[in-house]
Amino acid sequence: MPFEPTPASIPPPTVLLRQDPPTSWAVNYTALNPLSVLLRAALIYPDKPALIHEDVPRPVYYTYAVWAQRVQNLAYALRAAGIRPGDRVAVVAPNCPLIADAHYGVLAARAILTSINYRLKKHEIHYILEHSGAKIVIVDHEYAHLVRDFKAGPIIVSDDTGREGCAYEDFLASGRLYSDEKGWRGLEMEPDESAGATLCYTSGTTGRPKGVLTTLRGAYLAAVANAYESRLTRESVYLWQVTRVLPMFHAAGWCFPWATVFAFATQVTIRSVNNTHIWNHFLRTGVTHYCGAPTVQIGLINAPEARRLDKTCTAIIAGSAPTAALIAGLEKLNIATTYGPMTRNYPQPAWAALSAEERSKLVARQGHAFATADEVRVVQQREDDEIVDVPLDAKSVGEVVMRGNIVMQEYFSDENATRNAFRGGYFRSGDLAVRHPDGNISILDRSKDIIISGGENASSLAIEQELAAHPDVLEVSVVARPHPRWGERPMAFVVLRPGKDRDGFEERLNAFARERLAGFECPDVTPQVLDGTLAR
Amino acid sequence: MPFEPTPASIPPPTVLLRQDPPTSWAVNYTALNPLSVLLRAALIYPDKPALIHEDVPRPVYYTYAVWAQRVQNLAYALRAAGIRPGDRVAVVAPNCPLIADAHYGVLAARAILTSINYRLKKHEIHYILEHSGAKIVIVDHEYAHLVRDFKAGPIIVSDDTGREGCAYEDFLASGRLYSDEKGWRGLEMEPDESAGATLCYTSGTTGRPKGVLTTLRGAYLAAVANAYESRLTRESVYLWQVTRVLPMFHAAGWCFPWATVFAFATQVTIRSVNNTHIWNHFLRTGVTHYCGAPTVQIGLINAPEARRLDKTCTAIIAGSAPTAALIAGLEKLNIATTYGPMTRNYPQPAWAALSAEERSKLVARQGHAFATADEVRVVQQREDDEIVDVPLDAKSVGEVVMRGNIVMQEYFSDENATRNAFRGGYFRSGDLAVRHPDGNISILDRSKDIIISGGENASSLAIEQELAAHPDVLEVSVVARPHPRWGERPMAFVVLRPGKDRDGFEERLNAFARERLAGFECPDVTPQVLDGTLAR
Repeated sequence: MPFEPTPASIPPPTVLLRQDPPTSWAVNYTALNPLSVLLRAALIYPDKPALIHEDVPRPVYYTYAVWAQRVQNLAYALRAAGIRPGDRVAVVAPNCPLIADAHYGVLAARAILTSINYRLKKHEIHYILEHSGAKIVIVDHEYAHLVRDFKAGPIIVSDDTGREGCAYEDFLASGRLYSDEKGWRGLEMEPDESAGATLCYTSGTTGRPKGVLTTLRGAYLAAVANAYESRLTRESVYLWQVTRVLPMFHAAGWCFPWATVFAFATQVTIRSVNNTHIWNHFLRTGVTHYCGAPTVQIGLINAPEARRLDKTCTAIIAGSAPTAALIAGLEKLNIATTYGPMTRNYPQPAWAALSAEERSKLVARQGHAFATADEVRVVQQREDDEIVDVPLDAKSVGEVVMRGNIVMQEYFSDENATRNAFRGGYFRSGDLAVRHPDGNISILDRSKDIIISGGENASSLAIEQELAAHPDVLEVSVVARPHPRWGERPMAFVVLRPGKDRDGFEERLNAFARERLAGFECPDVTPQVLDGTLAR
Repeated sequence: MPFEPTPASIPPPTVLLRQDPPTSWAVNYTALNPLSVLLRAALIYPDKPALIHEDVPRPVYYTYAVWAQRVQNLAYALRAAGIRPGDRVAVVAPNCPLIADAHYGVLAARAILTSINYRLKKHEIHYILEHSGAKIVIVDHEYAHLVRDFKAGPIIVSDDTGREGCAYEDFLASGRLYSDEKGWRGLEMEPDESAGATLCYTSGTTGRPKGVLTTLRGAYLAAVANAYESRLTRESVYLWQVTRVLPMFHAAGWCFPWATVFAFATQVTIRSVNNTHIWNHFLRTGVTHYCGAPTVQIGLINAPEARRLDKTCTAIIAGSAPTAALIAGLEKLNIATTYGPMTRNYPQPAWAALSAEERSKLVARQGHAFATADEVRVVQQREDDEIVDVPLDAKSVGEVVMRGNIVMQEYFSDENATRNAFRGGYFRSGDLAVRHPDGNISILDRSKDIIISGGENASSLAIEQELAAHPDVLEVSVVARPHPRWGERPMAFVVLRPGKDRDGFEERLNAFARERLAGFECPDVTPQVLDGTLAR
């Protein structure tokens, strides 16, 4: 397909992609900054495909050289629009080149990227725009109505065509003019590696969204760790999509916008939610890596288009614990799983001798700290506020806590929340877990999701894990239901696998549960014959 | 083979391998330190083989758990011996567990490791001991005579058996006592990531050896980059040896003592120079990775024991440029090459279509900056002392310069040499190179090795590259010889490949040279029928 980037996207004929180090730096010091990985990729692999965006009326394909020029243009345009170091730049966009640009261009302008989930309600998006103090919004045309009331600065709308005449493309072209052909040397490097990189907001939690501020140092070290742990290479093809795998707007795409480029890989962005498009990339573009929370992948593997892949693809799972059933389902499609940051599961040699189900259970553990992360601990708080490790007995429940370079800097503009999250000198995850004798951790639940039934602690996650092993279960979610006698009782919402017999299912599943679970853990089952999945 | 580590080497039954972060650190800050990779490996893979040392009367095998305990013992013993933060600890040892221990134990004592080449002359070793101000020497029994006159502190001799009764093992056992079972928490973490890690001395250069001081930050970032770039994994087996591959004492083993452990790999140390032992490890232990300068590997691939490997092994080449002939020779044995820090060669997709010889020439280029390194530049110095890049024309010769996190901190106790090395804000390598239109660099020579023949600059390396392509040449070294008419003339010392015809070789090689080289580059050839190789 003939594709021509805009004239402003075509770099001048030079390979020098370099910024000038501040004179205050020692010869052996460079502030860690994920921006550096793009300049290096564009220097070494200028002609390699960096971004592929195909399932749209006008597909675009950017090489590393062209993409780096677009990023440079964006940085100049932002500066010309008044953006100063430390300012926030908001982006509301689906998976498309624009948001990939922003993960570099905003940093190149020494600003902080606030990417916002476009599926939030308008008032939530406005709360985030206001709380972050964003000075500019770059928005995809489909979601422009969500930010129409933004008053703090310019709104740049992209029609996602990569064509001149689109406001976003004109904005980039203006940046090229401002650069005056000084190129990268006209953009000062951020001297402080503790400066902010991204400000992404929580959602689906209690209360108002909180802004998670990350640093350049943390983003860089997490990206390098991801590239290493996921075995990303220059042959890798990474997929961004919103309903079946991780979208880029979510939590800085778990640092994969930078990890992929560190590895010189190709990123595929699709705004489509169409299974045919998604599986087309797996089967024909040759996707080798993606990230995703467990629930969204249930839809991926159960799509009618799903086929076993010729070459192993790696799924980086995070967000919540994968069930053994999900891991087995992915393996059938030749999709290997790793369970990602901040912890990951490190398979042990002895596991090779176990049955698939036994192994799946071990693989579903959260494991150990990631490369470049500090040890993840499971702790209880003593009366004097000191935190102590739980015994390594696979039984004593504590809270998962962590610290180190890849932990966030703070909850933005929220000293109370930050102080609370960091009490005891660790980030308190709110996840309840046990620690096995080998130091592995297993998350039982979010602390607010633990079910207290007859005085016993039942883990909704552990119950889900067991029920998901039943062959007729497509998906299962367990919650606490108030109960007059037991205080709380677990209640299971179950999606029947298509084609399975509805009659007697409840009894079959209850019998299955009684075999595998303690009495206080046995749920009241409410089978739901639903279209699609529980996951939204 | 039954192997029992000393009682002091057996860790207490706990997996908690953790130091307390200084209270001054933010929750999202941990000083980068290569020590951390060992504690993580011992936590996650306690029972995995970390060190294998086999070709000695009493072989030893250390798991990660045991090794970490030995390292902890060493740190306590060093502190009890009076070692304070920033002190230097000298090690004179062949490839054996002792020197691997020291790469962690010395850092755990917050001291700086000075590992010394035991093949230097006694007076050179003493110069280094004195200049570094080492406070203690740990020495292998075979080389104890070299440090007998050391007066500044204790000399700990190891008999390399791993057995109680050896002075080094007793030293470790004493460390275990001092730890008082406080374990790792009794050793404070180094708060400053710019603190010294290693102090290794140059040799074979003009004048006195210079001490290259590296930082913890630099060592950590270089180790992570090496693990990534070399694709080290927990299945990897890394070989240390002294005559055919890189020994650990040399330049901190190019950071592979830490890169291997970051990857949870197994290190094999052999003190033997016996080809049978070396090839035994390639063929039976299953070595997957090693480092080496080009010259030492000529002996490796030409050993009678050499066989094609079943599984591809990766050779990380550095020190000088590999000839295309060497790369081809390694490929025949199923040994793939990467050309390592600070630069490496990044193969381009288009190279796949080229002939083996053409591709070898491209692969032999020094390439681009390594992961975690800043761009490597080729520069000339203007009259006003500003440095400017050479044109990317593959012709203009400049000096290779570099800066960034993986550059050394300084020449220890030598302000003049440091200032000179760092003039213009870059480390001046002294290597002369050109830069190709794609930004790749090719080193022509050390600046002092360039041959000026009839006013033309001849590169000894380029001449070596061409002569090495002749099928009868095993090894070649080109130097400048003074000449009454031309000023200098290249002179080649050539080792004839065993079994090749001595008669007429000179003429054959001269004819070959005339076909491939300019007149001023054609050397006077002095074929040498030598046993072994030129490389010592």
